[in-house]
Amino acid sequence: MKQFEKIVSSEVIYNGRIVKLQIDEVELPDGSLSKREIVSHQEAVAVLAIKDGQMIFVKQYRIASQQLLTEIPAGLLEDGEEPEEAAIRECREEIGYRPLNLYKLGDFIPTPGYCTEKITLFCATEFERDPLEEDPDEFIKVVKIPVRTARTLFINGQFIDGKTVAALGYYFSIAARKQL
Amino acid sequence: MKQFEKIVSSEVIYNGRIVKLQIDEVELPDGSLSKREIVSHQEAVAVLAIKDGQMIFVKQYRIASQQLLTEIPAGLLEDGEEPEEAAIRECREEIGYRPLNLYKLGDFIPTPGYCTEKITLFCATEFERDPLEEDPDEFIKVVKIPVRTARTLFINGQFIDGKTVAALGYYFSIAARKQL
Repeated sequence: MKQFEKIVSSEVIYNGRIVKLQIDEVELPDGSLSKREIVSHQEAVAVLAIKDGQMIFVKQYRIASQQLLTEIPAGLLEDGEEPEEAAIRECREEIGYRPLNLYKLGDFIPTPGYCTEKITLFCATEFERDPLEEDPDEFIKVVKIPVRTARTLFINGQFIDGKTVAALGYYFSIAARKQL
Repeated sequence: MKQFEKIVSSEVIYNGRIVKLQIDEVELPDGSLSKREIVSHQEAVAVLAIKDGQMIFVKQYRIASQQLLTEIPAGLLEDGEEPEEAAIRECREEIGYRPLNLYKLGDFIPTPGYCTEKITLFCATEFERDPLEEDPDEFIKVVKIPVRTARTLFINGQFIDGKTVAALGYYFSIAARKQL
């Protein structure tokens, strides 16, 4: 079965600070034409930080969903940065700690139907205090939740941020396998 | 700590078939102004379908990420549809089965930093054959994977689609809790 789409033409509608929007005309597997609205977005990282039996989250207001969300530390890769470097920098900026060990939980494309963004998910369990100044337009509050409580909240659907749900799902599925 | 952002003005850049893009000027908690690029997107549903010990996935080419992805059945809510109705319709269209039981795994906002999309995640374990014609511009292939194999693939980071990772994370974390 032929399943690929071929881009016939592409028009950039908007090229902004965070997102770029383009309309691609594509040839479908049956030869017909269709339009795809594609949002381009810089690659990102997120870190599930576990220190002294507590998971470290940040609470911030998200205007796109118009609510305060509890999320794991995360951010976009800066120019020339590797995912590991970005993960360390974001932890220093958002929670004030430098991770001393980082292991990868998995890659994650939040919305592959229309957006290019990829997030690399890490877990860290050892840290040293080493804060870095936050981004000036971020207003966040650090929240620590015991692992067992976080698991209950997760299973009960209390976390709704995509990267946070993904990282917790990986972590608790892996932790469960180890315990079995 | 005051954490909310107030929208001062809003400009629609593009209003398309799948996404709408607008630029909001917001007042930050410290009184300064900033811009937020907001992508609006229709609410969606996704279903982790488990039949006869196998999870049912669909493989499709995603032009935004330029690869074939293995995903759980999913789609956008049509006008006036409840999430449960959309979940049943999407299962009928994409895998040819009507779910007879649907339970909610959780809500999930894939990228709350810049996009409004919310996905309601369901699980279904009982079905009857009841196919409905697919969307004309979707080219998908049904793939069945035994639950145990899917778990290994998931833990090893082989699924990267956001809703699929989220649903599998919920499912295997809950399943693990039941077994403990």
